[in-house]
Amino acid sequence: MGPHPAVADVRRAVRLCLADLSNRKSGKPDKSGKPDEREQGALVLVACSGGADSLALAAALGFCAPRLGLRAGLLTVDHGLQEGSAERAREVVRLAPALGLGPAEALTVVVGGAGGPEAAAREARYEALSRAARRLDAAVVLLGHTLDDQAETVLLRLARGSGTRSLAGMPEISDIYRRPLLGLARVRTRQACAALGLSPWVDPHNADPAYTRPRVRHDVLPVLEAALGPGVTEALARTARLCRDDADALDEWAGDVYVKSLEAGVGEAGVGLSVAVLAEAPAAVRRRVLRRAAVAAGSSASALAAVHIEEVDRLVTGWHGQKGVDLPGGVGVVRRYGTLYFVGKLVDNLA
Amino acid sequence: MGPHPAVADVRRAVRLCLADLSNRKSGKPDKSGKPDEREQGALVLVACSGGADSLALAAALGFCAPRLGLRAGLLTVDHGLQEGSAERAREVVRLAPALGLGPAEALTVVVGGAGGPEAAAREARYEALSRAARRLDAAVVLLGHTLDDQAETVLLRLARGSGTRSLAGMPEISDIYRRPLLGLARVRTRQACAALGLSPWVDPHNADPAYTRPRVRHDVLPVLEAALGPGVTEALARTARLCRDDADALDEWAGDVYVKSLEAGVGEAGVGLSVAVLAEAPAAVRRRVLRRAAVAAGSSASALAAVHIEEVDRLVTGWHGQKGVDLPGGVGVVRRYGTLYFVGKLVDNLA
Repeated sequence: MGPHPAVADVRRAVRLCLADLSNRKSGKPDKSGKPDEREQGALVLVACSGGADSLALAAALGFCAPRLGLRAGLLTVDHGLQEGSAERAREVVRLAPALGLGPAEALTVVVGGAGGPEAAAREARYEALSRAARRLDAAVVLLGHTLDDQAETVLLRLARGSGTRSLAGMPEISDIYRRPLLGLARVRTRQACAALGLSPWVDPHNADPAYTRPRVRHDVLPVLEAALGPGVTEALARTARLCRDDADALDEWAGDVYVKSLEAGVGEAGVGLSVAVLAEAPAAVRRRVLRRAAVAAGSSASALAAVHIEEVDRLVTGWHGQKGVDLPGGVGVVRRYGTLYFVGKLVDNLA
Repeated sequence: MGPHPAVADVRRAVRLCLADLSNRKSGKPDKSGKPDEREQGALVLVACSGGADSLALAAALGFCAPRLGLRAGLLTVDHGLQEGSAERAREVVRLAPALGLGPAEALTVVVGGAGGPEAAAREARYEALSRAARRLDAAVVLLGHTLDDQAETVLLRLARGSGTRSLAGMPEISDIYRRPLLGLARVRTRQACAALGLSPWVDPHNADPAYTRPRVRHDVLPVLEAALGPGVTEALARTARLCRDDADALDEWAGDVYVKSLEAGVGEAGVGLSVAVLAEAPAAVRRRVLRRAAVAAGSSASALAAVHIEEVDRLVTGWHGQKGVDLPGGVGVVRRYGTLYFVGKLVDNLA
């Protein structure tokens, strides 16, 4: 008898996700019993909160890693925000050997307040995970985000109105992080845990209406499903995939136009772009080029809003001799004859 | 004293929307009193249901048209779906002269059942409007869709998961139709009607939960606003604008790649595309090219789903000698050596 279908689903997702790291052809564990240098495969870590998603993922990694000739370990993060969080982190670590995972570590982080509680916790978490991965020389850190998380992310991003890249949601691969479960419904991870006799931790934050994501999960998505019919969650996740491909293609095009429009003679003082080259590009591409130039001149990508870029764009498409545009990060943009100059204020002051 | 701010907003939107048709420089009405050939400007029609959005729009058109040197008329559609709809259509027509609009006509349509009641009514309506516009030799038909309608459209499209073009919502200009109020909140049209002493008709369908759009309006958007904060409607409309620009740029790119990849020797029997050229394009562009070829070979654009195109795409990117792909509309796709052939079944049978 094979594994429970949900367990098989999670394992299949992990196997596919790690196929490029595998040094085994067969996918069968080495039965020879002899020490083999292939046993010293790359180290894959799983970030596990103890919740159903990451617990099912951890179990699947423990199962799949030896069959792929990989080593597998576990990290859990204690945010110190809830009563008993340290004890829970220890419990997750204690569970690791039974799942076939080692090394296993609890990482304690201090959550700041910048950008709201969810953003601050996320930032602290990723920083700790990245540091531990470097220290342990891990190739990859797996994250347990599911199809439902992706749908929630798209809805959250939608509310910002910030376009295709934003609607692309969470990437499957980003730096050392991989998300094997983005195509899998959350309910499957709960089923997998139940089938394996694992008792996932239920994070009270996930039901706390003080947080935005739980509100999307418990209030918005059910209403959307009721109004628009079943399949909304899958449709949102599909939207994310399509938007990611679109955003990637447009970034590629913008990269070409950026290089083509770059003019000599500015250098360290900033960036100069040819207005003629910019004016030939479609609006979507041109705005991406302008954003790129602003960041290259010292503006912060996260502080640059659509309205800033639109104002710069008017120096190209609505030129009537207007004065320059000031961007976040002290970057000024002016048009002189056929060139758009993006100049950092600091450099400007030195000149 | 100037007009009420809401009235001014609607008029400004109409003026901007029709600026390219104007044959007046000043925007002031011709006070000479003499007949002037410029009085015979283009005819602009407004599609008016009698509801607040299109009634405010009709009033603004009646005010602005003479100032732009344009003629203005009104069309109203009797769908015959509600008790008293014919009488209401007559009332809207009777109101037209007071708004400065003539000709004014009620168009009676027969709504079929294909594609659900909302889609069938929409199709019948646009067909009648287009026919009347041709008969009256109108340059433009104005539609009263607001920012709120656009936001609802984006949410409805989102539930389909069909990508950037779909999320682009309703265009400001499409064929003879223009939507001047897409940037204006619905509440402004109600305020404008009140300020002008106009009593808009309240369509009971707009509150009928049997229809999808009213469910989005009354159930989904308020919950979204409550969960994600105010400004969701504006964010959705902004998403539409950004997605439209992105979709336009990608269509342009796909058009270039389509022409570049077209191979001789297929002609009327179908379309042949170079696999090598396709393989160089990013996924988002390649899938658009494949969709274009499928439609050119006789597949219906509305019947082609993302899964169909993905299967064709695997003939390019996941080639292992698999057999052909059957598409809606009897189009078959096969790969032979370095060429992807899209062949209509009808032609195939004749061969």
